[in-house]
Amino acid sequence: MDQTSARRIDPNSDAAIAGSVTPFPIEDIAARLGIPANGIFRYGPYKAKLAHDYVRTLEERAPGKLILVTAISPTPAGEGKTTTTIGLGDALARIGKKAAICLREPSLGPVFGAKGGATGGGRAQIVPMQDINLHFTGDLHAISAAHNLLSALIDNHLYWGNALDLDTRRISWRRVVDLNDRALRQVVVGLGGAANGFPREDGFDITVASEVMAIFCLAKNLEEFEARLSRMVIGQTRGKRMVEAGALKGVGAMLALLRDAFQPNLVQTMEHTPAFVHGGPFANIAHGCNSVIATRSALALADYVVTEAGFGADLGAEKFLDIKCRQAGLTPAAAVVVATVRALKMHGGVAVKQLGTPDVAAVRSGVANLARHVENLQKFGLPVVVALNRFLSDTPEEIEGVRDALAPLGVSVHVCSHWAEGGAGAEALAQEVIALADRPSAFHTLYPDALPLREKIETIAREIYRAGEVSFTAAAGARLAEMEAAGFGRLPVCMAKTQYSFSADPALRGAPSGHVLPVREVRLSAGAGFVVALTGDVMTMPGLPSVPAAEGIFVDAAGVIGGLS
Amino acid sequence: MDQTSARRIDPNSDAAIAGSVTPFPIEDIAARLGIPANGIFRYGPYKAKLAHDYVRTLEERAPGKLILVTAISPTPAGEGKTTTTIGLGDALARIGKKAAICLREPSLGPVFGAKGGATGGGRAQIVPMQDINLHFTGDLHAISAAHNLLSALIDNHLYWGNALDLDTRRISWRRVVDLNDRALRQVVVGLGGAANGFPREDGFDITVASEVMAIFCLAKNLEEFEARLSRMVIGQTRGKRMVEAGALKGVGAMLALLRDAFQPNLVQTMEHTPAFVHGGPFANIAHGCNSVIATRSALALADYVVTEAGFGADLGAEKFLDIKCRQAGLTPAAAVVVATVRALKMHGGVAVKQLGTPDVAAVRSGVANLARHVENLQKFGLPVVVALNRFLSDTPEEIEGVRDALAPLGVSVHVCSHWAEGGAGAEALAQEVIALADRPSAFHTLYPDALPLREKIETIAREIYRAGEVSFTAAAGARLAEMEAAGFGRLPVCMAKTQYSFSADPALRGAPSGHVLPVREVRLSAGAGFVVALTGDVMTMPGLPSVPAAEGIFVDAAGVIGGLS
Repeated sequence: MDQTSARRIDPNSDAAIAGSVTPFPIEDIAARLGIPANGIFRYGPYKAKLAHDYVRTLEERAPGKLILVTAISPTPAGEGKTTTTIGLGDALARIGKKAAICLREPSLGPVFGAKGGATGGGRAQIVPMQDINLHFTGDLHAISAAHNLLSALIDNHLYWGNALDLDTRRISWRRVVDLNDRALRQVVVGLGGAANGFPREDGFDITVASEVMAIFCLAKNLEEFEARLSRMVIGQTRGKRMVEAGALKGVGAMLALLRDAFQPNLVQTMEHTPAFVHGGPFANIAHGCNSVIATRSALALADYVVTEAGFGADLGAEKFLDIKCRQAGLTPAAAVVVATVRALKMHGGVAVKQLGTPDVAAVRSGVANLARHVENLQKFGLPVVVALNRFLSDTPEEIEGVRDALAPLGVSVHVCSHWAEGGAGAEALAQEVIALADRPSAFHTLYPDALPLREKIETIAREIYRAGEVSFTAAAGARLAEMEAAGFGRLPVCMAKTQYSFSADPALRGAPSGHVLPVREVRLSAGAGFVVALTGDVMTMPGLPSVPAAEGIFVDAAGVIGGLS
Repeated sequence: MDQTSARRIDPNSDAAIAGSVTPFPIEDIAARLGIPANGIFRYGPYKAKLAHDYVRTLEERAPGKLILVTAISPTPAGEGKTTTTIGLGDALARIGKKAAICLREPSLGPVFGAKGGATGGGRAQIVPMQDINLHFTGDLHAISAAHNLLSALIDNHLYWGNALDLDTRRISWRRVVDLNDRALRQVVVGLGGAANGFPREDGFDITVASEVMAIFCLAKNLEEFEARLSRMVIGQTRGKRMVEAGALKGVGAMLALLRDAFQPNLVQTMEHTPAFVHGGPFANIAHGCNSVIATRSALALADYVVTEAGFGADLGAEKFLDIKCRQAGLTPAAAVVVATVRALKMHGGVAVKQLGTPDVAAVRSGVANLARHVENLQKFGLPVVVALNRFLSDTPEEIEGVRDALAPLGVSVHVCSHWAEGGAGAEALAQEVIALADRPSAFHTLYPDALPLREKIETIAREIYRAGEVSFTAAAGARLAEMEAAGFGRLPVCMAKTQYSFSADPALRGAPSGHVLPVREVRLSAGAGFVVALTGDVMTMPGLPSVPAAEGIFVDAAGVIGGLS
């Protein structure tokens, strides 16, 4: 028996801190942005979706300034990208700006696995954190259902005669579940005899890896959403002709499942700053940013919009700029790179256990990772500022080491304490962000649409990863040529590379250069509108750890959910 | 390409008829029942959940009268059980009673498959029908997630060492998806090498077949919900000891996923009668009724509550009475048996194509099915009335044939036209229902808890199915003995039998008797609190037809969802 109602919520937990603040009614948050009561659908008192009809009225408005929060290459020490996004948004609001933040919505996989939720921490959280980390407004469930409906229609098509002549060995459309479940990575379906269909190899990805999620986050409106869904490639015929999702005749039903979910979600931070939390694609085989429809809505409603991208800047920011901003016609105004002294020490070679010991030399060595990311962002014509997310163990000398290293790049470093203090701990950062963002933009993407796919990959490898060379397997090279021939050459490239290093080797911390970037495979995401280049094993279905976070989650005697982080 | 936005909604469709009425704000519907504004959480303007805290305040109130709508054995001609439930509720409201209805919530499987939605039809619908038929308030997604989290924890447990000594060949806990997807009925998971776990046979059921759904619909409150989840048996050890879900340490997380979903949903009929639509377990391996928490809430708030049960009365009503009412301590006040002249003709041997031709002899023959169900309900001490759901092709002679057959049972027949006319078409039925329900109740279950499991099965077979004999396979007999020995002998029995006949042979229409009921297998649903007796092949994962309903579903240019029925 597992009587969790006897358990109590840890008073120092993120859940308890979030629970110490009473959110404002969501219609009041909407009103701060000038959204009328009939412009939202409420989901309980503290969550809402912006109505499609209202979103359409925003399309012609002049956008506010878009601020990207990105980070150094992640280490087990953590950086605090989401808390910085929230803290900066709160700080902008505190100093009188009409501000909003845009975040990805959490997946249940990490919530029950190892990583936990995605609502920030300490005094820099979005609320209600339990709702957002669990089902929220059901968007991920809608995406799972739409994805799996197409999967069912594919097997049903095979069952009833396979008029499309699909090759069962070449069906690339898998199934999804929004959980970490390694046993589903590779399965055989259709067993048990003729009544159950044709046995074939298949597998499940986590929902955030679905191309439906990527499209959800890139489509500008429902019409374009539908057209993109129809274009998704689900497999090949015996004659190796690509088969699109539209041929299965279920795209209308998929769109019916996705219509409500596609409306941007509105919640608030603990300090009542409006937060749009909508969509959350994987940052490896997809682009790792919240939805375009939420970002554009936020920009129409606020003067400053702070958002984040997945992983470090080499992956997250590059994809944000080269895929999301390119496709959506967004012009970011500034970038914030988040780092911690602890993480920089790890890039300088210090082991996790030693992170508490001051080590200026290691910081000065590890800061090369940060400097490289800053330089890279400057290549996009973006003004950059560094947010150093403060830990009590940081020494003045270590912090000075970071400032020194960034000085040659003309970039200032702001020590932030929003985790402990909320927006008040990020006001100096906010002031500088405003100054930078209000300058005329010199933003440009890294490469033009017209550059051939292979050269796009080589450009990213050279300019961002600082690779000496890109190697393509024969299959990858041939597939790229096929895609060019089929008219997909103008798409941007979505790099699937380890987030732990600029190179393809996760063990290479710091700022390696001259390495070989091996492109092992390329995949077409015709609906999302990018070509994925895979440079290593890419995990599209995580596993659970030996003690999953699920074991610590419970409903207490008062009906409050505890154990989420 | 599948540009559905060019499609238009059929003006004669249920969707168009439902769309012709503007629902009242859901807080107004709640107010009709005396529910205060802070007693509900709104999900958009027309859907709400009753807050757990508010539901708890209802526990001590004296309940209203509970009316069960059930039906003859189903035929392809259809009966209209849901429309009658809605029409009767509307009629009760029209004649000035404080009425509410309780229905099951739809599953996406039939919506995209062959059967369509579950919101009634014509002028007897609950609204907003598109929302209810698609994600509604996310309950089924929550159940799927909770179920599959346990599945993932089981395989994760195997992966990390299998401390519980689970026998991978005897894991009875499968996975679920809320779709019709026959290719998932039987699968092998864990393929692909050591990193993906231990390969084993597995399969997916549709979500409504999950024991979590059955518990959702039988638990009285959150505390009991948790205790029941912990008791579910998920498999056996190598030594054949039963392993309960609680041992996997994930029940707290499951409950966290289910907490909000477990709050009863409130919507309205087209005539603004309050409708509680909550939970929807399968009617074969489970009991096929909406949630106890919704029924009890409705009874606390309304004077007359109309509800329905799955399949014909031999299955649906028997389980409603012997499982739901027994476990929840409910006392039903009356039963309505729905029939159509067309369906009675089919029971009399007429083929679908000939149903338009008047055939009094066939009606008089087929009415035996109806009379048998009426007699059965009387065995529970329930007053019964027959609702004849009218079609234009019905002749007065045919209707008279039905009346004649029922006269010896002391049961009157009301011809109803709620499909075409709404509540006005069921007022005479409503008047009689009130008269019957206001009599003192003589309700009793069919068998006492103390009767041994085998005799419970034999009692149902003899009294309800009119079988001459029950045969048990050796395995079923042995398993029943094991269950008795393990202390489960006091549980009620949940019969899994074809709904098309009183017998186990779906082709035997009318009122067969003296047949042999073969019990092939028995299963323990320790959390739901019943023993399932399977009398034939039970499909827990339906397939899609050659032209699934999904093909006709679309979002029109105005953003309205069409093609749902």
